Amino acid sequence: MEYNNPLDDLVHEFSKMPGIGRRTAQRISFYLLSLPKIEVKNLSKMIAEIGEKIGFCECCFSFMSINDGCALCSDKTRDHHKLCIVSDQKDLLAVEGMGKYNGMYHVLGGVISPLDGIGPESLRIKELLQRLEKGSFEEIIFAIKPTVEGETTTLYLKRLLSPFKLNLTQIAYGRPVGGELEWADQMTLYKAFEGRRHLNE
Amino acid sequence: MEYNNPLDDLVHEFSKMPGIGRRTAQRISFYLLSLPKIEVKNLSKMIAEIGEKIGFCECCFSFMSINDGCALCSDKTRDHHKLCIVSDQKDLLAVEGMGKYNGMYHVLGGVISPLDGIGPESLRIKELLQRLEKGSFEEIIFAIKPTVEGETTTLYLKRLLSPFKLNLTQIAYGRPVGGELEWADQMTLYKAFEGRRHLNE
Repeated sequence: MEYNNPLDDLVHEFSKMPGIGRRTAQRISFYLLSLPKIEVKNLSKMIAEIGEKIGFCECCFSFMSINDGCALCSDKTRDHHKLCIVSDQKDLLAVEGMGKYNGMYHVLGGVISPLDGIGPESLRIKELLQRLEKGSFEEIIFAIKPTVEGETTTLYLKRLLSPFKLNLTQIAYGRPVGGELEWADQMTLYKAFEGRRHLNE
Repeated sequence: MEYNNPLDDLVHEFSKMPGIGRRTAQRISFYLLSLPKIEVKNLSKMIAEIGEKIGFCECCFSFMSINDGCALCSDKTRDHHKLCIVSDQKDLLAVEGMGKYNGMYHVLGGVISPLDGIGPESLRIKELLQRLEKGSFEEIIFAIKPTVEGETTTLYLKRLLSPFKLNLTQIAYGRPVGGELEWADQMTLYKAFEGRRHLNE
């Protein structure tokens, strides 16, 4: 008879998570066993409540606390004339982590990628257009990752948004080409923001 | 006002876990948000119940399912004349993973390490002696990691167990010196078991 690790079910669940291999999953399980019961209960509760506590802002589509509303959209001290377009929440956090941008955001929910079956209609582009129609934006900053799909998305949106006669800018190629936005250090991201250039030539 | 990631609390909890950095913690949180609610509930439940479902076997001190008892000690098909001494559950799983050992285990719960304040009395040595007194063991196999502390522990136990007139063996130095037992591949561990040598010269 084969011996089954009594923690196998939990190890299996953890090893399904991104970035977690079997050994790390095992170490996490041992770690949880070593924790005081109250801490384990807390963690369990936090995970159980994640779906009830966190939602999407219906305006910018960033994650928000359902109780408190969107900390970005409701913040009067932010510049409501600038709009930064990012593909996902990770990239939004990278830009916020830079600490130099104080405008609004629009999270697309991905990039155009025909090979993966992601067309423009899968992204929050309709909602973006609605925001621009009633919004008071002066500048739209594209901070979409500089991969082929990301550039395609930027170009697609550039054409789509040109009738709005807004300042369309794109953060500079200070970021390493082909890299994910979230891995850029703060200074690189800052330089990229400083050197942003006009898309409407 | 600084923007707080609504997932920060959870990210913080995950990044306390061993082997999990901030980015991985963030990816795990996003992953949990993307899961169907029922799966999140299941994971939460598994974590909450870990303390109630998993306990120590009072004989070999491996983890066991509290409902089902110790799968190792209760397994009649295993060889109850061989006893393998390991420092912890991770190493037990490494030896089991090899798939060639079919005897019993004794988990010490660490190794002797005076600098960390771990003396022989902190380990399950008293319980080991009790097992040997009433047991029918013929061979004791030391599979403690080959670090200074591990070797100290093996030597200490060798001296302590010599009155029992048992075959005391130690798995061979096929394992990389100074390494953790849990990182050895299955073939290396197998070779080490094959080449085990007598401690009572």
